[in-house]
Amino acid sequence: MIAQTPEPPYYAVIFTSLRTLDTEGYTEMAELMVELASQQTGFLGFESARDHVGITVSYWSDLASIQAWKTHAKHQIAQKLGQEKWYSDYKVRIARVEKSY
Amino acid sequence: MIAQTPEPPYYAVIFTSLRTLDTEGYTEMAELMVELASQQTGFLGFESARDHVGITVSYWSDLASIQAWKTHAKHQIAQKLGQEKWYSDYKVRIARVEKSY
Repeated sequence: MIAQTPEPPYYAVIFTSLRTLDTEGYTEMAELMVELASQQTGFLGFESARDHVGITVSYWSDLASIQAWKTHAKHQIAQKLGQEKWYSDYKVRIARVEKSY
Repeated sequence: MIAQTPEPPYYAVIFTSLRTLDTEGYTEMAELMVELASQQTGFLGFESARDHVGITVSYWSDLASIQAWKTHAKHQIAQKLGQEKWYSDYKVRIARVEKSY
């Protein structure tokens, strides 16, 4: 789905990743993280697609909410497993959405 | 591929779309637009994935380059065809990348 976000300004976290061949536990964790993220203060929406590369964009009202989610205990476990098991490479970009149409 | 972008700040154009069933000419045009975009002043990189939804993120050095690409004659033809033929819904967000890791 295309996320229904408010008028800018707000923030986007663009997470781009390449997967390893290790899929064990990945889908369950990804679904859990979407569910958990959507309960956090400041969460505005979420878009995700994968073919050769995976792109997940989450939208947030402010930088403090992004920081709080980054340091959330369960999310930190997921990040650690992602780095060790599921992703061969990834990049996170934090961006301020200035315009949308 | 994960785009190799410089240190922030720079800009991201996040294009999220839902496709129609009309695929005629789409792949050729998409490939042409990537090739053409990558020749434009200020273009920094490009990431794209599609499953239920399509997400394409292009990276640019500044807003003027984004505006120039948006109004590029061949890109305008592609945008018009996209709106009329290939996309049932889409959203464009222009964002200033402030941090990456």
